Amino acid sequence: MDYVYGPGRNHLFVPGPVNIPDQVIRAMNRNNEDYRSPAVPALTKILLEDVKKIFKTTSGTPFLIPTTGTGAWESALTNTLSPGDRIVSFLIGQFSLLWIDQQQRLNFNVDIVESEWGQGANLDVLASKIAADKVHTIKAICIVHNETATGVTNDLAAVRKILDHYQHPALFLVDGVSSICALDFRMDEWGIDVALTGSQKALSLPTGMGIVCASPKALEATKTAKSVRVFFDWNDYLKFYKLGTYWPYTPSIQLLYGLRAALDLIFEEGLDNVIARHGRLAKATRLAVEAWGLKNCTQKEEWFSDTVTAVVVPPYIDSSEIVRRAWKRYNLSLGLGLNKVAGKVFRIGHLGNLNELQLMGCLAGVEMVLKDVGYPVKLGSGVAAASAYLQNTTPLIPSRI
Amino acid sequence: MDYVYGPGRNHLFVPGPVNIPDQVIRAMNRNNEDYRSPAVPALTKILLEDVKKIFKTTSGTPFLIPTTGTGAWESALTNTLSPGDRIVSFLIGQFSLLWIDQQQRLNFNVDIVESEWGQGANLDVLASKIAADKVHTIKAICIVHNETATGVTNDLAAVRKILDHYQHPALFLVDGVSSICALDFRMDEWGIDVALTGSQKALSLPTGMGIVCASPKALEATKTAKSVRVFFDWNDYLKFYKLGTYWPYTPSIQLLYGLRAALDLIFEEGLDNVIARHGRLAKATRLAVEAWGLKNCTQKEEWFSDTVTAVVVPPYIDSSEIVRRAWKRYNLSLGLGLNKVAGKVFRIGHLGNLNELQLMGCLAGVEMVLKDVGYPVKLGSGVAAASAYLQNTTPLIPSRI
Amino acid sequence: MDYVYGPGRNHLFVPGPVNIPDQVIRAMNRNNEDYRSPAVPALTKILLEDVKKIFKTTSGTPFLIPTTGTGAWESALTNTLSPGDRIVSFLIGQFSLLWIDQQQRLNFNVDIVESEWGQGANLDVLASKIAADKVHTIKAICIVHNETATGVTNDLAAVRKILDHYQHPALFLVDGVSSICALDFRMDEWGIDVALTGSQKALSLPTGMGIVCASPKALEATKTAKSVRVFFDWNDYLKFYKLGTYWPYTPSIQLLYGLRAALDLIFEEGLDNVIARHGRLAKATRLAVEAWGLKNCTQKEEWFSDTVTAVVVPPYIDSSEIVRRAWKRYNLSLGLGLNKVAGKVFRIGHLGNLNELQLMGCLAGVEMVLKDVGYPVKLGSGVAAASAYLQNTTPLIPSRI
Amino acid sequence: MDYVYGPGRNHLFVPGPVNIPDQVIRAMNRNNEDYRSPAVPALTKILLEDVKKIFKTTSGTPFLIPTTGTGAWESALTNTLSPGDRIVSFLIGQFSLLWIDQQQRLNFNVDIVESEWGQGANLDVLASKIAADKVHTIKAICIVHNETATGVTNDLAAVRKILDHYQHPALFLVDGVSSICALDFRMDEWGIDVALTGSQKALSLPTGMGIVCASPKALEATKTAKSVRVFFDWNDYLKFYKLGTYWPYTPSIQLLYGLRAALDLIFEEGLDNVIARHGRLAKATRLAVEAWGLKNCTQKEEWFSDTVTAVVVPPYIDSSEIVRRAWKRYNLSLGLGLNKVAGKVFRIGHLGNLNELQLMGCLAGVEMVLKDVGYPVKLGSGVAAASAYLQNTTPLIPSRI
Repeated sequence: MDYVYGPGRNHLFVPGPVNIPDQVIRAMNRNNEDYRSPAVPALTKILLEDVKKIFKTTSGTPFLIPTTGTGAWESALTNTLSPGDRIVSFLIGQFSLLWIDQQQRLNFNVDIVESEWGQGANLDVLASKIAADKVHTIKAICIVHNETATGVTNDLAAVRKILDHYQHPALFLVDGVSSICALDFRMDEWGIDVALTGSQKALSLPTGMGIVCASPKALEATKTAKSVRVFFDWNDYLKFYKLGTYWPYTPSIQLLYGLRAALDLIFEEGLDNVIARHGRLAKATRLAVEAWGLKNCTQKEEWFSDTVTAVVVPPYIDSSEIVRRAWKRYNLSLGLGLNKVAGKVFRIGHLGNLNELQLMGCLAGVEMVLKDVGYPVKLGSGVAAASAYLQNTTPLIPSRI
Repeated sequence: MDYVYGPGRNHLFVPGPVNIPDQVIRAMNRNNEDYRSPAVPALTKILLEDVKKIFKTTSGTPFLIPTTGTGAWESALTNTLSPGDRIVSFLIGQFSLLWIDQQQRLNFNVDIVESEWGQGANLDVLASKIAADKVHTIKAICIVHNETATGVTNDLAAVRKILDHYQHPALFLVDGVSSICALDFRMDEWGIDVALTGSQKALSLPTGMGIVCASPKALEATKTAKSVRVFFDWNDYLKFYKLGTYWPYTPSIQLLYGLRAALDLIFEEGLDNVIARHGRLAKATRLAVEAWGLKNCTQKEEWFSDTVTAVVVPPYIDSSEIVRRAWKRYNLSLGLGLNKVAGKVFRIGHLGNLNELQLMGCLAGVEMVLKDVGYPVKLGSGVAAASAYLQNTTPLIPSRI
Repeated sequence: MDYVYGPGRNHLFVPGPVNIPDQVIRAMNRNNEDYRSPAVPALTKILLEDVKKIFKTTSGTPFLIPTTGTGAWESALTNTLSPGDRIVSFLIGQFSLLWIDQQQRLNFNVDIVESEWGQGANLDVLASKIAADKVHTIKAICIVHNETATGVTNDLAAVRKILDHYQHPALFLVDGVSSICALDFRMDEWGIDVALTGSQKALSLPTGMGIVCASPKALEATKTAKSVRVFFDWNDYLKFYKLGTYWPYTPSIQLLYGLRAALDLIFEEGLDNVIARHGRLAKATRLAVEAWGLKNCTQKEEWFSDTVTAVVVPPYIDSSEIVRRAWKRYNLSLGLGLNKVAGKVFRIGHLGNLNELQLMGCLAGVEMVLKDVGYPVKLGSGVAAASAYLQNTTPLIPSRI
Repeated sequence: MDYVYGPGRNHLFVPGPVNIPDQVIRAMNRNNEDYRSPAVPALTKILLEDVKKIFKTTSGTPFLIPTTGTGAWESALTNTLSPGDRIVSFLIGQFSLLWIDQQQRLNFNVDIVESEWGQGANLDVLASKIAADKVHTIKAICIVHNETATGVTNDLAAVRKILDHYQHPALFLVDGVSSICALDFRMDEWGIDVALTGSQKALSLPTGMGIVCASPKALEATKTAKSVRVFFDWNDYLKFYKLGTYWPYTPSIQLLYGLRAALDLIFEEGLDNVIARHGRLAKATRLAVEAWGLKNCTQKEEWFSDTVTAVVVPPYIDSSEIVRRAWKRYNLSLGLGLNKVAGKVFRIGHLGNLNELQLMGCLAGVEMVLKDVGYPVKLGSGVAAASAYLQNTTPLIPSRI
C-alpha cells in the first residue's frame, strides 16, 4: 500500500472501528462454509440467545444483519414506522444529525429537539412534547445513547420515566452503537423497543454486522409499519428463524465465529466488569485531559461518556493537525472533530477490548503531539493523573490471581 | 461448536460462499484501522479503479457496499427507478424469483417473463414487449446473468441487441452474482447499466461486500429516481468520492485488504484465464454427470452454466439426502435443490479459486454418495470422463514453467 | 516469491511436512509470549501429560525439543549411549541410512543389518546377533518403525520378542517419525526405550518440534552415557521440569499452542480412529496402485506402510518427471524417489489430518500425470478401485450423525 | 488454558521472545509446503543472500538452523573447534555463564575472564592473555555482544583491535543474540568469524531459527575441527547449498516466509534506522529509570545496552514481585533478574519491532507496579523524562510524510 506502517503497532484510539482481540482475529482466520449445513444454524441459534445478554433483554428478538450502524438505523426505523409518522429525535452531534438526516429521507415527520453540541438530549423539551401529545401523534422517540462526536451519554432511564409518566405509547428507539457492551445498558428494564449496535464498536469485531434487538412491541409494530423495506425486513429473518435455517441471505461465516469469540471474552470477563473497566479508563482519560489544562467538549459531568472523550483545543490550534501528526509521527490514531466541532476538538476513543497500559501509551502520545503543535503541556502530567487513579482502582486479572 | 469438523478439509462445492484462497485469508488476518486515516482512502482509490476491470468497464462507477447480494440488488433498483416504474424481469429459478419478489415489494410494476426452471430467459417475449413499447413505459430490464438455482446462463449480448434494435432506452440491470469473475462479462460492450456481484462468489472472499457498478446512464437516472433509499444511496458514496475520503460510513478494513489480495490473484492469473479455467472445470463436471447417466437440470447446451451445475436425480431419490450424506460422511458440501426443484436436483458449485484436483475430489465424493443412496453409479466413471478431458486441456501453471 | 501458487489449493501428498488442519493454523496465529510467565509452564505441564498418550506410554518421560527429526535422533542416541558403544541398526532405505550415518559420525560402533530397499528389517539376523551376544556388547537396537523412503513398516513387537527371548538388556530406540499418531504404536507394551517423532508428520504441525519420549530405563542410561551433548541434553530439561518452569531455553510459543490444538483434534477423533483412518486411506491407495498396473516398492504385504506408498514406475519412465509435472500442472506435491530408488519410485504420503476426498483428488491427479508422462493408465481406474473400498468402509463423521 | 488473557493486549517487554509484527504473523499464517519443490529453494536462496545484510557481511556464509540460540552457540563451537582447544571466554552475566557452561561440557579448555555482573568484558585481561600467547594456544575468543541478563554491551571493535595488534589468529566467535538487528554490528569490518542470533530476538519472529554466519576463516576451520557434530554440522548444509536444494533436513516453511516478511520490514525501515530507533527507545528508558531514582545494573555508560535495561531495585523490594505483579495486574511482561541478580533487578526489554508509545505504556506500567510494591515513585516521572527526550527526537514515519 501507499502508507505502510511504521515500526511497532498502530495505537488505535478512534471511537470505532476499535482494536480486535487476538482471540477474535484467530477465530475469524478461516475459510468460508456452507451456511445451509446444519453447523451454521446450530451456531447461529446459540449466538442469538447469547447476544441478548449484551442488550440485557430476555424478551427481545435479535437480528444479526450484514450491514453497518447506518443500516441498523434504517432497519430500526423502516420495520416499525410508516412514512409520515411523527417522531421525536434529538440533535446533539454529528451522529444524531446523520440519523435525523436518514429519518427525514425515509419520509418521517421528524420533530427535532436540538441541543448545543456538547450537551445531552433536552429531556425537558421531550417531557413537554409528550405531555402535550394527548392523541399520541408521536409514534417514536429516537435517541442516540452515546453521541460519539461529542462524547455525550444520554439518560435513557429518564426517557422511559417520561413516557411512563404520561403513559405514552411511543416506540423507544435507541442507537447504542458506541454504548452497548461498554456502558450500562438495560433494554428490558428501560423499556427500549429497538436497540442497535455495530460489530466494530465495543464488541471489538470488524465492521460488517449490524446487531439489532426488537422488543415484542416493536415486532408488533412491524405489522402496521408501511415503510418500504426488503433487505432490512425483519420478517424475512423471522421466517427463517421459524424454519430453523436462520438466514434469508448469506451471512459472513467469519463474523459469526468472530462474534462467538467476542461474546466468550465478554462473558469470561463478565459484562458488568467490562462496563466497569470502561468507566475506569474513561475517568483516567478525563483526569489526564484536566491535567493538560484542556476542556472536555461535554459540558456537564452527568453526560460524560465512558467510551469516547472529545477534547477541546485552544483556538490557536487546529485539532486536525493533532490527529494528522499523531498518525504521522507516533502511529497513534485519534478521532477527528466532526462538522460543527471540526478543528476544535479531537477525540480519544476508549472503548472495546483495551487495558490500562494501552491507554497510557495513548495519553503519553497525546502529550507529545500537543507539544509538537505548540500547546504548552507539561509532559507526563496526564499520564501522572491517570495512573494515580488507575493505580488505585485497577483490579488484578482474575484468571491470574 | 456442535458440529465439529471431521478429519481433513471440508470440500466446499456449494455455489457460494466459495473457498477463500490462503493468500486472501492471510491478507484479512488483521486488526481494524482508522478508516479516516490517509491509508484507507489511498487503498480504496486503487481498489475502485481495479474493480472496474472485473466488470470490463472503463466508464462505470463502482460501489463497494457493506452488504450482501440482496442488498446489492436493492441498491441497483432504488438508485435508478421510481415506485410504479414498469420493469421487465425474467423468472427462471429461485434467485430470479427472489429478485422479482424484492422488485414487487419495492413497489415497481414488474412485468414477469417466466420460463420453465432449467430454461434461460425467454428473449423472444422480451423482443415483442420491447417492440410493442413505443412510448417507452418499460424503464428497466432486470436479468440474472447466471441463475444459481438451475445452472442457467443467459445471453446478455442478445438482450442488448434487442434494446438496440428497437432503440429502446430502458435501463439494463444485471445480477452478475454468480457470473462476474467467472463467466464472460462485458459491461461496457454489452451496454449494461448496473452490474453487481457479491464478495463471496467468484471473487472468493467472505460474504459482506456487495460490488455494484453503474454506467453513466445509471448515474444520470439517480437524479430522477424517487425510490426511498439511504443506506444504499449511491449519492452518499459519490459525495465522499469527491471529498477523497470515499466512505459515507465504516467499511470493513479486512474486506478491503481481502479484495486487494483477491484482485491481485485474479490479475496475476489473468481474468480471461480465470474465465477459461471456469469453462474447463464446468465442462469436466458436465462430462462426469453424463457419465453417471444423470441429467443436467439445464435444458439446452446454450444455457449451460460454467459456475454451477444442477444435477437432476431419478425420481426415487431425494436429492436432499445426497447433500446431507455428502456432508455427514465425506465432508463434502453440495448445494441443495431449491423451491420447485427441491429434492429433485443437487448442485455442484465450481466457481472461484479452484483447481482440477479439488474438483476431482468432489466428483469422486459425489459418486460415492450416489452409491450410498442407492443410485447404480459406476464408481470412477465420472472422474474418468472428467479427467480425460482435463488431462488434455489443463495448462501448466505459468509461474512454474 | 518466484513460484507463486496457481489457482486453488496445493495438494500436499509428500510424506512430510503434511497438511496442517485449519484449527491448528488458527491456534498458531499469535504473538510471542513470555515463556517465564505462569501461563507457559501451565500449558507445558498439560502438554507433557497429554503427549504421552500418542506414544501409548504412562511411564515414559517426554521432551519437546526445538529441533527436527534429525535432532530428535541425535537426542535419543547421545543421551543414552557412549562413543564406541556397539549398536545394531537396520539399513532398509534412505532414512535408516541417514540415521546410521549419524550414528557413525557420533562414533558409535554400528553393526548394520542391511536389507534390500523395499524389504523390512531383517529380524532373523537380529535374532542371531542377539543370541550370540552373551556378554551384552550390544548396547542398543536402532530401528526406523516406518521407512519413509520405501513405505516399509517394521514389526516392533517382534523386535521386543527377540530381546525378551534372550533376556537381552539392549536399549530399544525407535524412530517413529512417520508412524507415531498414524500407525499402531505402543511404547510401553513393546518395551521401547526411546521413541521419537517430528511435529510436521502425523501430528500435522509445522516443522520445528522434535518429540522424544524416554522410558525409565533410558533415563537411567543417561547417567552413564558419555556422549557429548548440551543442546540435546535431557538432563537440562529434567532440571527445569523439577523447577516447574520446564524450559532450559526458549520454546516456540506458537508450536506449543499448535500442539495443544493438534492433540485436541486427535483426542476428539480418537487416537485409534485416527490410526484406523490411516489404514483405510492407505489400503485405498494401494488398491489404486494395483488398478494402475503399477507395483508397490514394498515387497511384502506384512511391511506395507499405512502412511506412505512408494510406487515403482516402469523403467522407461523417470519418476522425478512425474513429481515435477504433478507440481507444475496440477499443483500436486508428491514425494521423490530417494537415493537408490531415485527416478524409480514416486511416493504418495497419506498421513496426517486427511480425508477420503482429499486422497481422491490426489489419486485422480496421479492418473493424469501418469498419462502425461506416457504411461498407459486407464483414467479413473485407480479412483474407482479406491472408492469402491472407501465407499464400503468410511464411517459417518461422529459429530454430524 | 489456565491463565487466560485479561482484557486488551499483553505488553511484552521481556528481552525475548519479542513482539511479532502483524505483517510477520500474517506471512506465517499458512499451511506446510513440500520443501523439495522448486519454490522453497528459490525462497531460501534469496533469504540466504538477504540475511547477510543484517550481519553486515558480504563474505560470510549464513546457516538458518531449526534450533534456538543455545543450538546456534553449539553450532558455532563444534564446527570450528576441537575438544581440548583453549578458548578465552568472558563471564559477565547469566547468558555468558550458560555459554561457558556449554563450552566446558563440549570439552573445550575454557580460559574464563570474569567481571562483576553489571560490567563489560575485561579487555585488558584479554590483551595480556593475547600478548602472552606467542605460540597461539588460544584458538578462539568467545564473547557475548550484549549480555541480556545485565544489559551490558561489549566493545567488539576493541576485541578485534587487540587481536590485530598482536596478529593473533584466534577465531572471534560472537553471540549476537540480543544485538544483531538492533545494535551496531559489523561482521566483516570487525573481523568476526562466527556471529549468531535467534529468530525470536530483534528479528521479531517466533522462536525456532538459529541464524549463524561463518567467515571464510571459520569455514576453513571446519576442516580441522574435531568436535563431534551431526545435526549442527555446517558441512551438511554446504553440501545441499551446492546441490541447490539447500536443506539437509526439513525447515519450518512458516519461519522461512516469516523471515522474508521480517527482513522486508527491516529493509523498508532501513537497518540503520532500526538501530537508531533502538538507541532512542533505550535512551528514553534509561532517562525514565533515572527519573524514578533507580539505578541501572550496568555500571558504566560505555556498556549501556540499547536492547535491554536491567533496573536495580532497593534492597527492601523483591524484584520478582514486580515482575509477578506487572503480569497479574497490568498484563505487562517484564524480565526477571537471573541468578546472581535474582530478586535484585528486573529487566525491560526494548528490542524488536517496537515504537515510542508502546514503550510509554510499559514505562507507565512500571511506575504503577513500583508504587504497588511500596517504592515511592512519582507517578508520571519516568514517562515525563522519556517523552521529553522522544518528543525531540522521534522522526516522522517516512511513508506517511
